[in-house]
Amino acid sequence: MIVPRLIERKRDGGRLEPQEIRELVSEYSAGRIPDYQISALLMAMYFKGLDRDEMHALMESMLESGKRLDLSRLPMARIDKHSTGGVGDKTSLILAPLISSLGIAVPMMSGRGLGHTGGTLDKLESIPGFRTALTLDEAQRQIARIGCAMIGQTDEMVPADRKIYALRDATATVEVIPLIAASIMSKKLAEGLTGLVLDIKRGSGSFLPKLEDELELAKAMIDLGAAHGCPVIALLTAMDRPLGYACGNALEVVEAIDVLKGGGPPDLIEVTMELGARMLVLGTVASSLDAANAMMRDAIASGKALLKFEEIVAAQGGDKSVVRDPSRLPRAARQQVFPASRDGVVQSVEPRAIGYGSIQLGGGRRNMEDRVDPSVGFVITAKPGIRVTKGQALATIHARSEEDLAVGKSILEQAIVIGDAAVTPLPLVSHRVTARGVEELAAR
Amino acid sequence: MIVPRLIERKRDGGRLEPQEIRELVSEYSAGRIPDYQISALLMAMYFKGLDRDEMHALMESMLESGKRLDLSRLPMARIDKHSTGGVGDKTSLILAPLISSLGIAVPMMSGRGLGHTGGTLDKLESIPGFRTALTLDEAQRQIARIGCAMIGQTDEMVPADRKIYALRDATATVEVIPLIAASIMSKKLAEGLTGLVLDIKRGSGSFLPKLEDELELAKAMIDLGAAHGCPVIALLTAMDRPLGYACGNALEVVEAIDVLKGGGPPDLIEVTMELGARMLVLGTVASSLDAANAMMRDAIASGKALLKFEEIVAAQGGDKSVVRDPSRLPRAARQQVFPASRDGVVQSVEPRAIGYGSIQLGGGRRNMEDRVDPSVGFVITAKPGIRVTKGQALATIHARSEEDLAVGKSILEQAIVIGDAAVTPLPLVSHRVTARGVEELAAR
Repeated sequence: MIVPRLIERKRDGGRLEPQEIRELVSEYSAGRIPDYQISALLMAMYFKGLDRDEMHALMESMLESGKRLDLSRLPMARIDKHSTGGVGDKTSLILAPLISSLGIAVPMMSGRGLGHTGGTLDKLESIPGFRTALTLDEAQRQIARIGCAMIGQTDEMVPADRKIYALRDATATVEVIPLIAASIMSKKLAEGLTGLVLDIKRGSGSFLPKLEDELELAKAMIDLGAAHGCPVIALLTAMDRPLGYACGNALEVVEAIDVLKGGGPPDLIEVTMELGARMLVLGTVASSLDAANAMMRDAIASGKALLKFEEIVAAQGGDKSVVRDPSRLPRAARQQVFPASRDGVVQSVEPRAIGYGSIQLGGGRRNMEDRVDPSVGFVITAKPGIRVTKGQALATIHARSEEDLAVGKSILEQAIVIGDAAVTPLPLVSHRVTARGVEELAAR
Repeated sequence: MIVPRLIERKRDGGRLEPQEIRELVSEYSAGRIPDYQISALLMAMYFKGLDRDEMHALMESMLESGKRLDLSRLPMARIDKHSTGGVGDKTSLILAPLISSLGIAVPMMSGRGLGHTGGTLDKLESIPGFRTALTLDEAQRQIARIGCAMIGQTDEMVPADRKIYALRDATATVEVIPLIAASIMSKKLAEGLTGLVLDIKRGSGSFLPKLEDELELAKAMIDLGAAHGCPVIALLTAMDRPLGYACGNALEVVEAIDVLKGGGPPDLIEVTMELGARMLVLGTVASSLDAANAMMRDAIASGKALLKFEEIVAAQGGDKSVVRDPSRLPRAARQQVFPASRDGVVQSVEPRAIGYGSIQLGGGRRNMEDRVDPSVGFVITAKPGIRVTKGQALATIHARSEEDLAVGKSILEQAIVIGDAAVTPLPLVSHRVTARGVEELAAR
């Protein structure tokens, strides 16, 4: 196998054989193919795509690159939720404790920030002591004991995907549908699930701003799941603006805890409940969406969901006192309110500008090796379509220094546009996709 | 500067500012941007190209990344020849001693094998002891003393180009006209030339099989040269078959010595003389091509050119006895004649198959780090258009083992096609391009 010739073939629009893909993945995992060849191949795939066979071979070889969770002896359903990545999307932080508090095992394996989007692992690690790098054995035992583990990909599980995912992030090769589908599904199938709910983001802040691409991604993942007997339901949700208010690692943990306590921004609550209801129905602990919603409301009102979060934090070595007192989380040295520059209607709050802005403030990675500052980011209460008056607070900037506050201010000036036109943002939840087809839930 | 965003912009068809290109090149040279990001950017450039400003900025920043030869105190003209890369192309090995024996300084800085093509440095290093990694100072003093040095890019000279060139080779991002132009011209301008002759290869074995691309490349290099007061003349020559017979590092040195001794294959002699005549006229030591040809014939017949080659080899630490006795060069353990499988006309001798075949036998690199075996390769006397009879020797395979001989045989079975149709190969020298325009020298 001469790697440059495989790159060349893909570059010229040719097809790689399943066996070639398997060999590429295993040799790369073993460190026998350098990063720089794989990143060039990934960029060629960006332009030339992968066909169904290539995608299945990639997913299989990533799945086979490591061990899997064996939860087959657990009596309950094993359901996870996965999002394609957004800005301000902290639904995982809420759903893992909420759903596992209701008798479903949630073996949640998440990623780090990718492109402009945040990562659940980076958010969790803002909790002092929280270990996301559990061994497979530790995760299995924790799930058996408390019904949930929130972990990263260890070297044992889908190591090939882990390596490729980090490389894609650093090389602008994230937005390739079969790569996204194979990456997500290799992780999810390694969890030994009995069902999966997908949150596919739509709009300017998603990796795939076009509806046809989102539907293609949903179908690809449903297809990959079906090949392994794992039913998959996908919801398409809005990412034309950040979800909720907080954008930044510790800031998002605070907001997730808020929701678990019965508070939180309405849009975040709605999307979380829609996803959670599907998890409960897929796991057959609720017989209808209405019943599922009632169960979730009760788990929050009773404090059961919050208690489960404390239990998870403590089990993974985190300081569980932050759950009752989020002010103990890392806090940026400087905060500054960002006011409206004029009267008018908020035209847009651009998730990409916000996401990349958080990276600029130190809250994400420019290179694979970078460290993340958990404390920085934005809390943006302004939403597209709302009417504001000059001087009204639209957001708060959290930064490390006066200089960074100025950077944050100029980022928000770019990201938050005020105008005069009426604005109709995307519906929060617009489509449902299953093996049976696409169903439109709300018209734009 | 967030590198993934620059990659993304280029990927999406945007333009990089000259300042951004300068920063990318200097940060990459300094090891502060990893290979994997630059290789992804190069692949994006493969698909989206570079405009004239981007190309000039890239060339300038590579040129400025290191020191240059200062030959301004030498009394004679300083002329080099550069080829865009072919298979069996050993004209540099002949021209450096031949032209410098006629009173022109030839500061020849060459590269290594790239893609399927061979590299002058790899060929020279098959001479025991030959050092191509001279310091700038050593090269300057050698040129002042004997009129010629045949060197590689040191860490001092255009280090940025050296790094990018090696990366392109390993990532199938060689065939991008502005990258080729900027790479060649940064090296050539760092030599402090008063003129340059370019050999732009045409046909299936060249990096640019389309005539319009070859002419674009010639014009780009003439444009880059003009910006630095260095007149450039380009000849377009045939690379639809290997040049000469020998393809392989030591094998090509043997054949080059053959030409310096008055022998050698006719096609190799013709192309070498055409290029050499332009060097002599550009350097104003010959007043016409005819006069130049007479001078070269005399330098070979008198032994002056061969003596100069001995002088160069000795000056650079090589075993100069190989020049009189080429059998002292590394020799492969196994040789085997490859006969014609049928009567007929040779339809093609595919340079790409031969070039990649040599790599497979160990004569080139699959990765940046690989070592090259100087002894292996092919000597192919068959030329497209000649009539052959079954059993007639078409080539000799030089390999390390019986297994490799079998590999070599299957490579030649692919590369050398015998049929019945008459065949008209490309004219050896077809076009001349100067700042004044394109002139067709021979019709196809």
